Amino acid sequence: MKTTVIGLGLIGGSIALDLRSAGLATSLVGIDHRAEHGLKAVELGLVDEIQSGEKALHEADLVIVAIPVNAMCQILPSVLDAVHENAVVIDAGSTKNLICRAVAEHPKRKQFVAAHPIAGTENSGPEAALANLFSNKTNIICEREKSSAHALDVAAKVFAALGMNTIFMESDEHDKHVAYVSHLSHVSSFLLGQTVLDMEKDERNIFALAGSGFASTVRLAKSSPEMWAPIFDQNLEYLSQALQEYIMHLQRFHYHLMKRDTAELHRIMSKANDIRRVLEGSQIQPQPAGPVSR
Amino acid sequence: MKTTVIGLGLIGGSIALDLRSAGLATSLVGIDHRAEHGLKAVELGLVDEIQSGEKALHEADLVIVAIPVNAMCQILPSVLDAVHENAVVIDAGSTKNLICRAVAEHPKRKQFVAAHPIAGTENSGPEAALANLFSNKTNIICEREKSSAHALDVAAKVFAALGMNTIFMESDEHDKHVAYVSHLSHVSSFLLGQTVLDMEKDERNIFALAGSGFASTVRLAKSSPEMWAPIFDQNLEYLSQALQEYIMHLQRFHYHLMKRDTAELHRIMSKANDIRRVLEGSQIQPQPAGPVSR
Repeated sequence: MKTTVIGLGLIGGSIALDLRSAGLATSLVGIDHRAEHGLKAVELGLVDEIQSGEKALHEADLVIVAIPVNAMCQILPSVLDAVHENAVVIDAGSTKNLICRAVAEHPKRKQFVAAHPIAGTENSGPEAALANLFSNKTNIICEREKSSAHALDVAAKVFAALGMNTIFMESDEHDKHVAYVSHLSHVSSFLLGQTVLDMEKDERNIFALAGSGFASTVRLAKSSPEMWAPIFDQNLEYLSQALQEYIMHLQRFHYHLMKRDTAELHRIMSKANDIRRVLEGSQIQPQPAGPVSR
Repeated sequence: MKTTVIGLGLIGGSIALDLRSAGLATSLVGIDHRAEHGLKAVELGLVDEIQSGEKALHEADLVIVAIPVNAMCQILPSVLDAVHENAVVIDAGSTKNLICRAVAEHPKRKQFVAAHPIAGTENSGPEAALANLFSNKTNIICEREKSSAHALDVAAKVFAALGMNTIFMESDEHDKHVAYVSHLSHVSSFLLGQTVLDMEKDERNIFALAGSGFASTVRLAKSSPEMWAPIFDQNLEYLSQALQEYIMHLQRFHYHLMKRDTAELHRIMSKANDIRRVLEGSQIQPQPAGPVSR
């Protein structure tokens, strides 16, 4: 399949690597508005060549769009305008509500598959691309019933090539869930980083005392603001709800701390320990592929 | 050296393993108020045998105390009472102010070294003990000037056997710094875990959407409440300060989120990105060993 990847960063670059090694992409053309990313992506062998727009889209059988979610909403309609009638367009955005809405009335909507392959690292740009980044991770497809059987079939091949388990959700349900298990984690990590950096201004050597636990908790604070500011903005309502609940829990903890109610602190932490069961125990069963809508 | 380890969990057990393999501990006796931990520690070869109190302390040349910090304050004076006059007692507690205060007036204070070897995992108990847990990590010794040259010499051998870089601090400075780079991380992680678990009650499958970023951020929520509730309580003032600053940053972020001020969100995240420099770039230089007090 002639494949075009729009956005040659961590996600787009990693998808390109796996599609090539699985033999699914017979040619790989890249589009990136940052010229240096395009050059780097060719140099790294993520794509064969860089083209600018129209031709790369018109000739593609498969278009992967992996750019910040605000840009996604802006360009997806014109991407669909440009592709031929058997082409399939798949996005990899971390929000789904507004992206689906951006193409809801498009005459080629059925050629589009709204996806969220959930994987990543705190790094960004073409140099961050990794083979097998998505292996054994979960992919979400939203509004499955609005994609054609052909588009879903191509998407199934793509995510199989990436080694992912695909599940299906409504876009609103998706956005609510990721607000809690992904977007809130990023906010908590960014602000933990800022709190400690503020402290560092006044105190030398504070980081000599940072163990691996701190590094783990603050890892996501290294993530790309270009990617995350639009995600937070697009998922404002659910993220606000999650963030307010988080702040409420922190304030309640602080209250019990100040009251020296060690038993209550203990109880709260014991409840939180249950995250171990969740992370280690429960594995989602992938739903069988096929045109059954939920 | 005849060595007695009080508390055969993650930290005490891991220290025992390294002291034995370095040849520093010629015999290893364990003390643990949980009989099952004692049995397990012998079974795992962490210590040679379990004894209860007086004899194990009286015959030891080196006593390592690795128990929750509230229990530490309670028993350290009687541990010092029980040891012979050439014995050295070293604690591994995550707070230092109250622990130092608990033995400040003890006639054998100079036989005690107040230490905090900064390493760990989210697991606990003797089964969690790991060889080389402390390798290349930082150890803090507080109130160095109150320990004898002999005690500091033994401590230097112990932490060299663990492969650690030792730096020296006042206990108050220690407690302030760890409030930010360790205790706050744990609080943020525990409450992130709770926020998402609360959400899970109502929403099936939420964790199918959890990527490795969430797992990393919430890892510390698996930590032992028995260990951490007393640490938070002992470091209440500095932790409260750190926690209030963190909550303030989260609220400010929420404010800009709701105002849809994406540029400001971007700016905050870009500043937080600086944590990369700190975690990857700055390495503390170990201070030369010796009796120079700061």
